[in-house]
Amino acid sequence: MPKIPLSELAGAIDARLEGDPAFEVSGIAPLERAGPDDLSFLANPRYEAAALASAAGALVVGRDFPADGRNILRCENPYLGFARAVAMLSPDPPVLAGVHPTAIVDPSASVPPSAAVGPLTVVGSGVELGEEVVIGAGSHLEDGVRVGARTRLFQRVTVHRGTTLGERCVVQSGCVLGSDGFGYATDVDGAHHRVPQRGGLRIGNDVDIGANVTIDRGSAGDTVIGDGCKIDNLVHIAHNVRIGRNAMIVAQVGIAGSTVIGDRAILGGQAGIIGHARIGDRARIGAQAGVIGDVPAGMEVSGYPARAHRDQMRAHALFARLPELFQRLKRLEDRLP
Amino acid sequence: MPKIPLSELAGAIDARLEGDPAFEVSGIAPLERAGPDDLSFLANPRYEAAALASAAGALVVGRDFPADGRNILRCENPYLGFARAVAMLSPDPPVLAGVHPTAIVDPSASVPPSAAVGPLTVVGSGVELGEEVVIGAGSHLEDGVRVGARTRLFQRVTVHRGTTLGERCVVQSGCVLGSDGFGYATDVDGAHHRVPQRGGLRIGNDVDIGANVTIDRGSAGDTVIGDGCKIDNLVHIAHNVRIGRNAMIVAQVGIAGSTVIGDRAILGGQAGIIGHARIGDRARIGAQAGVIGDVPAGMEVSGYPARAHRDQMRAHALFARLPELFQRLKRLEDRLP
Amino acid sequence: MPKIPLSELAGAIDARLEGDPAFEVSGIAPLERAGPDDLSFLANPRYEAAALASAAGALVVGRDFPADGRNILRCENPYLGFARAVAMLSPDPPVLAGVHPTAIVDPSASVPPSAAVGPLTVVGSGVELGEEVVIGAGSHLEDGVRVGARTRLFQRVTVHRGTTLGERCVVQSGCVLGSDGFGYATDVDGAHHRVPQRGGLRIGNDVDIGANVTIDRGSAGDTVIGDGCKIDNLVHIAHNVRIGRNAMIVAQVGIAGSTVIGDRAILGGQAGIIGHARIGDRARIGAQAGVIGDVPAGMEVSGYPARAHRDQMRAHALFARLPELFQRLKRLEDRLP
Repeated sequence: MPKIPLSELAGAIDARLEGDPAFEVSGIAPLERAGPDDLSFLANPRYEAAALASAAGALVVGRDFPADGRNILRCENPYLGFARAVAMLSPDPPVLAGVHPTAIVDPSASVPPSAAVGPLTVVGSGVELGEEVVIGAGSHLEDGVRVGARTRLFQRVTVHRGTTLGERCVVQSGCVLGSDGFGYATDVDGAHHRVPQRGGLRIGNDVDIGANVTIDRGSAGDTVIGDGCKIDNLVHIAHNVRIGRNAMIVAQVGIAGSTVIGDRAILGGQAGIIGHARIGDRARIGAQAGVIGDVPAGMEVSGYPARAHRDQMRAHALFARLPELFQRLKRLEDRLP
Repeated sequence: MPKIPLSELAGAIDARLEGDPAFEVSGIAPLERAGPDDLSFLANPRYEAAALASAAGALVVGRDFPADGRNILRCENPYLGFARAVAMLSPDPPVLAGVHPTAIVDPSASVPPSAAVGPLTVVGSGVELGEEVVIGAGSHLEDGVRVGARTRLFQRVTVHRGTTLGERCVVQSGCVLGSDGFGYATDVDGAHHRVPQRGGLRIGNDVDIGANVTIDRGSAGDTVIGDGCKIDNLVHIAHNVRIGRNAMIVAQVGIAGSTVIGDRAILGGQAGIIGHARIGDRARIGAQAGVIGDVPAGMEVSGYPARAHRDQMRAHALFARLPELFQRLKRLEDRLP
Repeated sequence: MPKIPLSELAGAIDARLEGDPAFEVSGIAPLERAGPDDLSFLANPRYEAAALASAAGALVVGRDFPADGRNILRCENPYLGFARAVAMLSPDPPVLAGVHPTAIVDPSASVPPSAAVGPLTVVGSGVELGEEVVIGAGSHLEDGVRVGARTRLFQRVTVHRGTTLGERCVVQSGCVLGSDGFGYATDVDGAHHRVPQRGGLRIGNDVDIGANVTIDRGSAGDTVIGDGCKIDNLVHIAHNVRIGRNAMIVAQVGIAGSTVIGDRAILGGQAGIIGHARIGDRARIGAQAGVIGDVPAGMEVSGYPARAHRDQMRAHALFARLPELFQRLKRLEDRLP
């Protein structure tokens, strides 16, 4: 790792330096394990004691952390400041531009010299890769796929035809983008006939997609993932779903077909959203919640079926007291024979 | 897309034409986005207003849609009619038969000239592919696997030894078929010892399997997926499960070991079924339901632990009123001191 | 399959033989399907009738099974005895050592002659493989990955840099080990900025990992999976999680970031564990449970939010009686107007 003086880090992450400007850090570590050459951070006040006890050489902290004589980089948003510092102290390993000799690239594909196409990949006809795109080993891009500048696909990603990816996205290993949605018409004998899925998948800029995620193409129109969305591992997004900007979708969430998710919505891990629902901007869906209808903008819901989180928690507390409730009811009944 | 006159479409999808037999459609689109060259459809009466307002050049509709002067293809089952029309208007892209030079095919494998074996695939010894089988790029078929005619594996599918696939199946990208089941014998020290999984996996005809699905081989006998089953993305099916014909299994469902699922059962998204259970024919398991025992044929269940859906919904409505209930009880108690 | 006399099997699996020492078995089968050459077993007394009715040539049974004149191998732990017998009767197919000519192995990687590196694999610089390691077709090991002796990766496994695997592990097809965790710092405009994930992933000895599992690297420290853990298909384990020894994690479980799981804990299928929680040794988390806090050692919890399983089941039974409860309450109120 490079050694970077605090004065330089402070400028780069927009922090106020309290301490020795020439002090150099060369690593990053959590509070408990940081040593005198490491940078660590405190974003959650709950861990303030751990921060005060930490051996870290320097800390990124928020406005309220007590000045205790050590090297401090004070930020409005210490977690964001730390994120930027990590990117400087520990940059992504460099990727060599060029097409690996084992890559199978259709001659009609457009691959700029700054792009890196990894070994054992398949790049179909008419594919367009932007500047500095990285296609990880074992990935497959079907005909006509478009990938925006500086987007990186990790290993073993499948991108089906009709899919467009924006700029600066990251798609982790094992993802399937643009798979056929689950659409069947059932006949009188109970046999299910495929409804050919002919829509596309449009993924905006700065979208991150975790490992082994599946996102279906639209059935006739497109499935749409808005700019800045972050999607965790093993999430399933069905056909025709439309997601706004900067939504966060935690691991193993499932979103059924044609549902619309608003900007900055947060979907907790393993939550499930019914099809054809509208989830408003900044709605918060609790982990494991089962959403069976619309959720207004800004609302926090949880449980199954999902309701306002506060009401749900209150009812859950009383649910635990059901045995007591039945006893009290019985006592009353006994007194009114 | 080809242009097809309505007279031809009507005959092919078994519809009654009301309108201009020579009118040609060349595309498909949802009601709101369809233009004058597009075919659209109305299957759910809830969207009748959208259908009446649609600019679609022709509509596939059911028996009750009002004749409003436009071009109509009237069907008993309009969604099925539309599915067939889409297949005509927008056929699957053609696949070139033959073995890609980068495919690694064991000389003892049986690959008819009509089959297509994609790049960077591995086809083991004794594998038997039927006519017009398609093996997608990056897929791996272990020794002895059999694949029925016209079945298509998309990219990066793993098929372990002991697996047989029927005809006309579709297996989407990232699936793992015939993985080792989760079987361990625990010793007195708490160490878990593998029980070698030696059964197979038999998949019937016309089975569709979504992206990144995992289906385990049997432990000693076989895991069985019946004809016509449709399985959505990220589903897990454990060892020794047996599923009847035409079941529908929505995304992220998990079915534990040795459970038996009846014909035409429907399992909603994220539902979980305990091991060794019997789910009857045409049973309906709600999304996210947690089934901890048998479900009789035809029954609809939901919730955790899963119970009759109607009862469950009634109890859930009262669950929300628990705060009121406790208050009312308290009031009664106060009056009977 | 080899034919093995019962006397030899009995010695190998530490069983007491009751019957003909020279009798040979050559196959394994479940009780209902076993024939006269097959070995079967009875571990759960519920199936004793099926065992007595079975046509199996020999049975592995526990101490209480009645001697009924047939060939019996009696063990303290019959399931474990059967597991060992299966491994003898039906050994794993042999793997040919050596590097496949289509494998792309960096010259600086350390690959002993006893290791098998499959076709279409990528092995990065500085990778170290132990004796008899198997790298399945289409797998990708990034720079510096270390894999302990006799560990087997199935097909299409991605192992990211910073990952270490112990000895005798099995990693099934489609797994992603060491993916980037879900860590973002959100700015005032709602944009989420990646926190570069720089920790590693340490996997102990004798760990089994099912198909399409994702395990994230740590953010700064390591994610740790203890010796002997068994992980089923489609499980998600987030960054910085630490799991003790011999834990069992059933299919589709999700464990959020920084949670600590104790030795021999059991997590039922589809359970979800919140981040930063502590799950004690031998805790038992029910299938689909939603754990939103710590769970003490040895405790069994279920439901959402997870509580003591016994209490939860009692409350669930009363939940089903809520309609009756409201009626009884109404009756009391009517009598006290």
